[in-house]
Amino acid sequence: MSKSSVNAAVIGLGNVGSGTLDILAKNRAEIERKLGFPLRVTAVASRAIASKPLPEGLGSDVFTTADWREAVARPDVDIVVELIGGTTVAREVIETAIAAGKSVITANKELMAAAGVDLWKAASDKGVAVAMEASVAGGIPVHDVLREGIASDRIQTLYGILNGTSNYILTEIEKNGSEFGAVLAEAQRLGYAEADPTADVDGFDARSKLALLSALAFGERVPVDHIFTEGIRRITPLDFDYAHRLDNTIRLICSARRSEHGLLLSVRPSLIPRSTILASVQGAYNAVWIRGEFGQDTFYYGRGAGPHPTGVAVVSDLMRVARDLRGGNTGRVSPFSFRELTDHVKTPIEIHKAPYYLRFKVQDQPGIIAKLAAALAEQKISIEAVLQLPSDTPHNLPFVITVEPTTEQSIRQAIASMSDVPFFTEAPLALPMEKGL
Amino acid sequence: MSKSSVNAAVIGLGNVGSGTLDILAKNRAEIERKLGFPLRVTAVASRAIASKPLPEGLGSDVFTTADWREAVARPDVDIVVELIGGTTVAREVIETAIAAGKSVITANKELMAAAGVDLWKAASDKGVAVAMEASVAGGIPVHDVLREGIASDRIQTLYGILNGTSNYILTEIEKNGSEFGAVLAEAQRLGYAEADPTADVDGFDARSKLALLSALAFGERVPVDHIFTEGIRRITPLDFDYAHRLDNTIRLICSARRSEHGLLLSVRPSLIPRSTILASVQGAYNAVWIRGEFGQDTFYYGRGAGPHPTGVAVVSDLMRVARDLRGGNTGRVSPFSFRELTDHVKTPIEIHKAPYYLRFKVQDQPGIIAKLAAALAEQKISIEAVLQLPSDTPHNLPFVITVEPTTEQSIRQAIASMSDVPFFTEAPLALPMEKGL
Repeated sequence: MSKSSVNAAVIGLGNVGSGTLDILAKNRAEIERKLGFPLRVTAVASRAIASKPLPEGLGSDVFTTADWREAVARPDVDIVVELIGGTTVAREVIETAIAAGKSVITANKELMAAAGVDLWKAASDKGVAVAMEASVAGGIPVHDVLREGIASDRIQTLYGILNGTSNYILTEIEKNGSEFGAVLAEAQRLGYAEADPTADVDGFDARSKLALLSALAFGERVPVDHIFTEGIRRITPLDFDYAHRLDNTIRLICSARRSEHGLLLSVRPSLIPRSTILASVQGAYNAVWIRGEFGQDTFYYGRGAGPHPTGVAVVSDLMRVARDLRGGNTGRVSPFSFRELTDHVKTPIEIHKAPYYLRFKVQDQPGIIAKLAAALAEQKISIEAVLQLPSDTPHNLPFVITVEPTTEQSIRQAIASMSDVPFFTEAPLALPMEKGL
Repeated sequence: MSKSSVNAAVIGLGNVGSGTLDILAKNRAEIERKLGFPLRVTAVASRAIASKPLPEGLGSDVFTTADWREAVARPDVDIVVELIGGTTVAREVIETAIAAGKSVITANKELMAAAGVDLWKAASDKGVAVAMEASVAGGIPVHDVLREGIASDRIQTLYGILNGTSNYILTEIEKNGSEFGAVLAEAQRLGYAEADPTADVDGFDARSKLALLSALAFGERVPVDHIFTEGIRRITPLDFDYAHRLDNTIRLICSARRSEHGLLLSVRPSLIPRSTILASVQGAYNAVWIRGEFGQDTFYYGRGAGPHPTGVAVVSDLMRVARDLRGGNTGRVSPFSFRELTDHVKTPIEIHKAPYYLRFKVQDQPGIIAKLAAALAEQKISIEAVLQLPSDTPHNLPFVITVEPTTEQSIRQAIASMSDVPFFTEAPLALPMEKGL
């Protein structure tokens, strides 16, 4: 390359777009000290461009437009940064950029989980790069770690806390003893949760992220609907009381693990020991725990979202791609870590084996434990402990049974066989207990 | 490159060398699935080569020799992996490899802290690469994170637990209440500590690692003797009792932070809040906590040593360098993150400001607290708390004073002014309390 700088167009000026421009403006000198050449933004597109002043320090000659096509088409633009989100226009932006021979950076987990491999193949055919560090766990460089940092390891298990909103809600329930609904309402008021909280609290956002990380960690192309997904709506302060009694806490755990039957994937609230480092992840933080055959345990922690933490991921990707463009080596590393992905064969969650936490709420009467114990025994499930904290609500009495390792299948059958008993005031809640952290 | 594989020579078959070969043999298929081309070891040199069988799966045509020069000189070798340690022969190996136009990977913190910049410049002049992920925090890919993962951030503070032996000893003292000497002896018996433990327990190993990480994080070339270094020999079970009473624990903390007077560097036992994630680092694990201006807090945790965890770092470096060789772009990223390092100007540790933990042991008599309080008041140091746990040794009575933030300078002067008081049975111990984690 003969020209002196590598140039980017930023498409979308929401939180992440603004954070990205801010970093490029404010950290310009240090970025150039690392790269050895200038990295510049020469075009910015946003539908609201008229009302969005660009940060000082970005340079005065930035082309701004409300029409992303104009920005992408600029001949001085080498890299297009897609930060508008969603899967329709965003996809068009990326495809247009690739067709024009430009490398692409995106923070779009949903699109990349659904179509990332295809977009990457299209980019490879054109000899341009695709990078997506910001798509999972904002401020944690976990893509980079999997692609390069520990690339030589063979990953056995990956655990993640990948949805900051859910983790915030769970840790608020834990700290304050408030009910889910109240905490959610407060989180919405504070702007930590969306008006429609489904993607966060029902696990779908975390599911897209787990699909992407699984591709990077295991080389499998995982359709999101292959991932068993359960949200946090049923978790109560009571469950934390019981979990604490068991020296555990509860988190929305994304997990991917190799098993003899294939890669087993789930997003679900789980009990984890309070002594594990994963249990110390509070509030809106994210974390990823990786166990490799050789490197054993490593753990990565940081902000899951926010304009600046996610902006660091975007601009670090820009630096990476700029270096590769500069060296004429845009295909040096696959954005998915593996150069070919195999199709994931869905492994039924029913085979997953773990100890379980079973929480019941009943209208108190004699013989309840005997009935439940019989249903468990029928599935050859061994009870480890029966716990009942003091309660003044005999008409709606909670108690907990923990059981020794058994399969999800057996737990489901045992619970199904309890369905005709008359004393439940709420359906039993079954949560796996992750002991292997 | 026309040939089909990228080839390495491994020099040194100690723990890390054996772990490296093991990973290359056992994870060969997955490594090739990621790279898209084969990565092979074609030569191995070790003085003890005759007694060291190579792992199966490495291939049958590996050239073995007791003379490293023979291995380095092999025409089919593209990358030389220096794993013999020390600063004399190791340096010769690296210089010989570079002179022969071969890229170099090393796990040698001591050499790279002392001469890394010069070796890298020599390599750059020859158009070859230098990589050193394994030199700090074995299984944690912190070099990669600083060079690429969060490269766009501006690091403000870096805290590390970088010596596994010290952390093992401290957490054993904490758990079991044993004295330093007894725990060290047990660690030596188990092979966790060397016969001469100085490098580990007096902080010199951690100091080399901090010098390297500081270069990567801040772009400054730090001579190790610019780093204030204090070991863990004086830490007693009693100090943990007091620290716990203050909701703190004690770790050997490596820290590097920007201040208005320059980069402030130290390796010293420090009190840290028990609630911080850094406090959960137990046993021989290592961890690095980074605070950036934009990405805020990120945290990285894993095994600090061991053949396989360190081997993952070496082989991941091999993959990185092989990719760059393959793409004809060996200089794409500086091994120090920055392309030019500035010389570190030593900032006197005396300006460091923190709350302090002061532990005294005295022959009990009236007026002690009054005397010590007067010495502190003279330096304008405010007492926060005086703590005295029950003790049955009035002839050697321990107690603790914590003070509000003050400078290391003031603390030293206060302690110096106490030196003529007759009641001390041991010199006072002053530890900073790191509140900002």
